[in-house]
Amino acid sequence: MVDVAILGATGYTALELIKILLNHPKVNITVLTSRQEGTPHIHSIHPSLYGRLNLNCEDLTPTQVAERADFVFCALPHGASMAAIPELLAGGCRVVDLSADYRLSDPGVYEQWYGQVHTDPTRLGSTVYGLPELWSHRIPDVDLIANPGCYTSTSILALAPLVCGGGGVIESTGICIDAKSGVSGAGRKPKLTAHYPECNESVTAYAVGRHRHTPEIEQVLSQVGDCNVEVVFTPHLIPMDRGILCTIYARIIKQISEDELLEAMRKFYEDKPFVRIVEHLPATKDTVGTNFCDITVRITRGHLIVLACLDNLIKGAAGVAVQNFNLMNGFPETLGILPTALATNS
Amino acid sequence: MVDVAILGATGYTALELIKILLNHPKVNITVLTSRQEGTPHIHSIHPSLYGRLNLNCEDLTPTQVAERADFVFCALPHGASMAAIPELLAGGCRVVDLSADYRLSDPGVYEQWYGQVHTDPTRLGSTVYGLPELWSHRIPDVDLIANPGCYTSTSILALAPLVCGGGGVIESTGICIDAKSGVSGAGRKPKLTAHYPECNESVTAYAVGRHRHTPEIEQVLSQVGDCNVEVVFTPHLIPMDRGILCTIYARIIKQISEDELLEAMRKFYEDKPFVRIVEHLPATKDTVGTNFCDITVRITRGHLIVLACLDNLIKGAAGVAVQNFNLMNGFPETLGILPTALATNS
Amino acid sequence: MVDVAILGATGYTALELIKILLNHPKVNITVLTSRQEGTPHIHSIHPSLYGRLNLNCEDLTPTQVAERADFVFCALPHGASMAAIPELLAGGCRVVDLSADYRLSDPGVYEQWYGQVHTDPTRLGSTVYGLPELWSHRIPDVDLIANPGCYTSTSILALAPLVCGGGGVIESTGICIDAKSGVSGAGRKPKLTAHYPECNESVTAYAVGRHRHTPEIEQVLSQVGDCNVEVVFTPHLIPMDRGILCTIYARIIKQISEDELLEAMRKFYEDKPFVRIVEHLPATKDTVGTNFCDITVRITRGHLIVLACLDNLIKGAAGVAVQNFNLMNGFPETLGILPTALATNS
Amino acid sequence: MVDVAILGATGYTALELIKILLNHPKVNITVLTSRQEGTPHIHSIHPSLYGRLNLNCEDLTPTQVAERADFVFCALPHGASMAAIPELLAGGCRVVDLSADYRLSDPGVYEQWYGQVHTDPTRLGSTVYGLPELWSHRIPDVDLIANPGCYTSTSILALAPLVCGGGGVIESTGICIDAKSGVSGAGRKPKLTAHYPECNESVTAYAVGRHRHTPEIEQVLSQVGDCNVEVVFTPHLIPMDRGILCTIYARIIKQISEDELLEAMRKFYEDKPFVRIVEHLPATKDTVGTNFCDITVRITRGHLIVLACLDNLIKGAAGVAVQNFNLMNGFPETLGILPTALATNS
Repeated sequence: MVDVAILGATGYTALELIKILLNHPKVNITVLTSRQEGTPHIHSIHPSLYGRLNLNCEDLTPTQVAERADFVFCALPHGASMAAIPELLAGGCRVVDLSADYRLSDPGVYEQWYGQVHTDPTRLGSTVYGLPELWSHRIPDVDLIANPGCYTSTSILALAPLVCGGGGVIESTGICIDAKSGVSGAGRKPKLTAHYPECNESVTAYAVGRHRHTPEIEQVLSQVGDCNVEVVFTPHLIPMDRGILCTIYARIIKQISEDELLEAMRKFYEDKPFVRIVEHLPATKDTVGTNFCDITVRITRGHLIVLACLDNLIKGAAGVAVQNFNLMNGFPETLGILPTALATNS
Repeated sequence: MVDVAILGATGYTALELIKILLNHPKVNITVLTSRQEGTPHIHSIHPSLYGRLNLNCEDLTPTQVAERADFVFCALPHGASMAAIPELLAGGCRVVDLSADYRLSDPGVYEQWYGQVHTDPTRLGSTVYGLPELWSHRIPDVDLIANPGCYTSTSILALAPLVCGGGGVIESTGICIDAKSGVSGAGRKPKLTAHYPECNESVTAYAVGRHRHTPEIEQVLSQVGDCNVEVVFTPHLIPMDRGILCTIYARIIKQISEDELLEAMRKFYEDKPFVRIVEHLPATKDTVGTNFCDITVRITRGHLIVLACLDNLIKGAAGVAVQNFNLMNGFPETLGILPTALATNS
Repeated sequence: MVDVAILGATGYTALELIKILLNHPKVNITVLTSRQEGTPHIHSIHPSLYGRLNLNCEDLTPTQVAERADFVFCALPHGASMAAIPELLAGGCRVVDLSADYRLSDPGVYEQWYGQVHTDPTRLGSTVYGLPELWSHRIPDVDLIANPGCYTSTSILALAPLVCGGGGVIESTGICIDAKSGVSGAGRKPKLTAHYPECNESVTAYAVGRHRHTPEIEQVLSQVGDCNVEVVFTPHLIPMDRGILCTIYARIIKQISEDELLEAMRKFYEDKPFVRIVEHLPATKDTVGTNFCDITVRITRGHLIVLACLDNLIKGAAGVAVQNFNLMNGFPETLGILPTALATNS
Repeated sequence: MVDVAILGATGYTALELIKILLNHPKVNITVLTSRQEGTPHIHSIHPSLYGRLNLNCEDLTPTQVAERADFVFCALPHGASMAAIPELLAGGCRVVDLSADYRLSDPGVYEQWYGQVHTDPTRLGSTVYGLPELWSHRIPDVDLIANPGCYTSTSILALAPLVCGGGGVIESTGICIDAKSGVSGAGRKPKLTAHYPECNESVTAYAVGRHRHTPEIEQVLSQVGDCNVEVVFTPHLIPMDRGILCTIYARIIKQISEDELLEAMRKFYEDKPFVRIVEHLPATKDTVGTNFCDITVRITRGHLIVLACLDNLIKGAAGVAVQNFNLMNGFPETLGILPTALATNS
């Protein structure tokens, strides 16, 4: 059993983590933190946990956390994460960081997109980016994993088999990613853009040309394909709780059929239990509540359209974090996140 | 033409008022107020008004407002309303107050339910409650109208023809009002209970036994029926933008059929263009965007079930405010809120 | 391992059953039936099952089913169920029937509410009603269980500790149940009332005074309390996928405080892992995706208000069916439906 | 006053038309048709019209319609429209056809995309495409107008000022239109894809590469720009009632700033009261219930992103139909669809 702490327990990602980990046979949740006053019981914040987890949310220092946990899921906001992680690591904890603080490899790029100086720059270049479908071999040995962003995972899983060295099927620049996300992606803190009567019954783009997942997508895809990938990334807010669908437009540079492409993508993700290459047009609903990413492709008028979807809080955050946790601890990758029946039936 | 000011222009009720008044042939909107910094253009707050109204929101004193407007729709929060209204009246304005400040007739009851001392108590007993279906004759001559609450109007219109002197059909105590409201009823200020991922895909009761519309419903129904009416009022939040449905349970004390009841209610609301006594079970959707209140009744097992619905922002707030405005100014009651075709076709 | 068949596999309840059973350590799904043409693969009907269950939906006779399964979850419509079940039982299967066909004990009442003669009347009086919180001791030994209706379970769990012999707290007649349900309760067959643009952004009552769960609620509560219980049951359609909230109004006949009542209800449901007596006002969202029923009470003006909610497809259908399956097979009641962590942490 | 018939009165577009026309000072609705049995009253189909329009839906021949109406809004499905229109015209009616039957100019293209031979091919080439922002001068004199498709209008209004002769700002091929539509666009006939529990809380693409608005968009834009325009059109279903947002990606071929582009687009739509070139990112909600189309542009990484939205049932169907009606009858273009206050205030 691993004694686990969750930092920033009041958010939606933390709630998903708790729900998954309550059902994980190798986990014992020992610490929850938040900066809320009065160490509230976790079920007063998340009533769905009533009767399921008897812990309070405490305002602890990283050192205090390290005394009571071996492994930390850090669900703090960016900035707060890099302030806590060096001390957690020094205290002997292994960490999956769900913030953006350790995802980019260049402190200058971090500063440009996040508007602050990185306070732990030496770890930036060396932290493993925790997308197990691409780099599961790098994950077991490290003490710190940068958990990917939700839009990022969707985009990368969709494009990795296709760009440059990945597959050479499409132009590596001018890739247009039209992303649609449920509102839980905006977090749990009330704000006007996520106020029900504002975003319900409406669809709108936001942060056009300046969303922070843009450099993250480009960095990882450029590494995977070993070339310069450039994307036009446009996120939209959709009136639903969860789910991300990315509709990706790219120019084809290789003669290939849809069937051949699907086959090549299936081969690329062979033995990756959480990526499903499907023939039908995927709907976010079919992945919500699961750790699956569903992907298909269509070819029309010289363009490749890749459609990929997942649950932003699970495969886009808490689920992949547990995948990373499993790999770091030598457990089966699917432990606690995939029904056992899947392995035997599919 | 009447020069009109709207106080508290950033809220949802104010937005509905503006939309209605932009189409009202006798209104000239001259003043919008809010306490937001920097006198923002109204379309930067409500983008739906882009190109439709060229006014900024200003932070003005009541006296300044009175210099530029003859008539004021006061859409301020309770407390703020009673602080502004004496000065508006002194400045010569006529006022429809959309807050709760002048609805109750007893300062003690006000203090008990709103937790503050009423600062303009002498007007409480004498202010006309602006529900035109009941008291249209009292409205024309006054300078101040207390615009009814949204739950209140729905409940009162449903019950007025039935209780005590109103009709004597049901017991006047133990009336259970199960009310369901869209989220816009919670206002435009972000808060956790109206945060999209919290209230979407969920239904819950709130303020059970202590919602402030309770004394308002009882006061008005007791006046209408000339008896002591007592209700159990339970509001619920429904994942939709707009609309209120009240499902009301009461014990029958008079032998009467559904058809006779519908007929009696039609007679009660004869010449009231905004109340529709219908045979089918009304859906909030059929009243959204209109100033109608749809009502029907069913009898089952010795109980009367009254079902009534309306648009909380229109018939429950801005629409009835314009009804009051029309009556106060000697205009046809339906001016600007009812398609002209209605009168000729129905 | 138990070889399990699911009859009527294309519906929403069947989908939930499959998802639960895929994760159940003692179940092997061997048969899926539907009357759709061409024995479609289950994932072409429910794309969320892609890669998770490799079975086609076949159009089989009960005898054919009995050859390939030991246990049957019958998710057929009422009428079709009673046509299949005698043959299933004769073939040696044990059965949980999720339709209404075996819930009522009187064939005359069945005929009155379902408009058809019951073709297996001798089993009606003797079939155990599968609400394990009330009658878990009767379930293990039988071969056929009538799985409760969703509104019914919510209402009964809320009221059983309170009426007559159950607790004697409230009048046993004139109990008004105002029920609110998500649209999945209407089934998967397209119809105008469940057409998105009709029911989205709207709330309405339906089947007032004549919903078929009425006699079921009264029959079971009358048995539990050993008295004549009479309810006014009014269902409403809420624009959300899942969840039922029942707001129940009853007249108090016993001097008791809210705290004492909560305590009495906790005692009543001691050792019942799926009923949570909570202090806060429960929201359907907090039970969605789980087998929990959350209940609380409030006292106001001589009335008791009981608020109870659950997921109509799980605790209201598929989840309780698996509870019954577990009890019938001697497995722990919570197997496959409750995270293991719950037992240890709460 | 013009005597007006609406054919196919049971659909959503017809309902919007009726609501608009009830408020139109020059219209007298005299005929409603549908093929439903028993000539139902219109309010039994659309309860929102209760008390507003006293007409039944009749199953009439075009000749019978022509006897009772001077002007016809034909809201029949494609195929049915071209079967009725020749007879309506012969009977002396003027017609706005809201189906797709007369939009394309080439019978061969019609047959290819609609799978049937066009039965009135001689009118195809000569029917005016009723997008008043582009061709208001052609509309007054004709007897038949092909009302544009909803996706089409959004896409064309967004792109017309930019392609080839229109503005020469972007490449005329490889334009990727990512379109998002509310579910009312799927019509009022129940079907699985518009069944609430299927499309709620989900987003998915559909008809990728083969949606019928594709040739319509290309035909009109090629005419406007006098060049060969080629688009990749991908529609998505969004869980909301109404609204379309098109996010359009195109490669820039001209050095120009965002401000200059907005200025050029404002100039292009000068004197067009229903197109609003805005600076903010438009949300569908801000156009719902109006006849406005809101458009803005962004430049990022050599790509132009055009964002345009409107209400699919109004500016995308019924509203533009009334614009056409007004122009055909010599009324002000905005009569009945724009609050009078707009002209004076903006």
